[in-house]
Amino acid sequence: MKALILMAVLFLPVVARAETPPVNRVYAGSFPIAESVAVPPGYTTLYVSGLVPSVTHPDAEKGTLAAYGDTEEQTESVIQNIRKALQAQGADLKDIVSMRVYLAADPTTGKMDFAGMMKAYTRYFGTSEQPNKPARAAFQVAALTSPAFLVEIEVVAVKPAA
Amino acid sequence: MKALILMAVLFLPVVARAETPPVNRVYAGSFPIAESVAVPPGYTTLYVSGLVPSVTHPDAEKGTLAAYGDTEEQTESVIQNIRKALQAQGADLKDIVSMRVYLAADPTTGKMDFAGMMKAYTRYFGTSEQPNKPARAAFQVAALTSPAFLVEIEVVAVKPAA
Amino acid sequence: MKALILMAVLFLPVVARAETPPVNRVYAGSFPIAESVAVPPGYTTLYVSGLVPSVTHPDAEKGTLAAYGDTEEQTESVIQNIRKALQAQGADLKDIVSMRVYLAADPTTGKMDFAGMMKAYTRYFGTSEQPNKPARAAFQVAALTSPAFLVEIEVVAVKPAA
Repeated sequence: MKALILMAVLFLPVVARAETPPVNRVYAGSFPIAESVAVPPGYTTLYVSGLVPSVTHPDAEKGTLAAYGDTEEQTESVIQNIRKALQAQGADLKDIVSMRVYLAADPTTGKMDFAGMMKAYTRYFGTSEQPNKPARAAFQVAALTSPAFLVEIEVVAVKPAA
Repeated sequence: MKALILMAVLFLPVVARAETPPVNRVYAGSFPIAESVAVPPGYTTLYVSGLVPSVTHPDAEKGTLAAYGDTEEQTESVIQNIRKALQAQGADLKDIVSMRVYLAADPTTGKMDFAGMMKAYTRYFGTSEQPNKPARAAFQVAALTSPAFLVEIEVVAVKPAA
Repeated sequence: MKALILMAVLFLPVVARAETPPVNRVYAGSFPIAESVAVPPGYTTLYVSGLVPSVTHPDAEKGTLAAYGDTEEQTESVIQNIRKALQAQGADLKDIVSMRVYLAADPTTGKMDFAGMMKAYTRYFGTSEQPNKPARAAFQVAALTSPAFLVEIEVVAVKPAA
């Protein structure tokens, strides 16, 4: 019994680690992203490819902007695709810790539609149902892999190890 | 002895974790990248700088495109440089979990040569000798750090902790 | 007592892991970044958002380049903002393992000011007071989220778990 107590003391930090302390998200300012997100040991890290939108207007000409919609509509589609990719690994949008948003110029304006992207983003991050917000970087790139794509999003998510 | 059995039960999850479960790569569709890659605890994470090509045509004028070759040739060189960087840390191309490919416009066409990059990429990822494919994002940037560079690649790799 | 000795042997690898082996930075060549950085298990990972500069010339017109300064001055401000974000999580610039520098064209030249960014960067990384250098990627993007921003920097840092 004495040995048991001694062991309990000796291995206390290890036992504590097995309980997986929570992810710590620092929110600063009113913009709906985290300033930083801290992930302690004990989590599985999920690296998701940069995902692009699915065709949402199948009647439109294949490979055109009309088939994928504007930046808001494409962002909505990309977020759904990210959700499916995360669910296939036992995670969901709430588990995203880091996000990179790559926007292409909307040919109708010649500039990225940052506001359009934000409209779709804020329906899924920082809401009452899903309050978690990721650390994020977002900028306009010179081109995505198809001229019909206006947005590509790459995320890292974490889940407590099984 | 009773104490021993009790301890063995108490610390079972910790002992199991020490065995490092495998990396889980989800492949969806036919494109030669992973949709996502899950890395459980117990791995060392290797962050590699964005690497650029080496001079492959030393007779060409220094700092010119001719010295580095086209996008396919530059990608081949970058992958070799990534391999060397990983090997210096006890890892290799098979251990890459996340990759970001930054392409610059080929001055002969004014556009990124995505197909040229893929020709070199598919010689090293998703082959019978090296079947592992990383999660990946790829897009065209406005400019790399030298006008002679057409591709820069940044990777994250993992290896079981020693 | 026999049980104690037996347990000590059985749990040796787990106990050793609790001591958190050091981060291993490989420096190759004279450029002030790491070729790669290896982070063993046992660290908390800090994902920081892409941070932009603060206004350093409050008398200048709001939202203009004059309010934020040139690339060197903006980089100086961004690094201070990153430091504050890391300190809020119990870390500092020395703990950065991975950095992505997104530069926008300076409107006075039409190109990114890579040298200006480096002037500020080298005051904080690879110095005698702070010798640690991160793995890094840096390139010019088409546009950042404000036309007044010339640089945005995104980092990943690590600290030994509590």
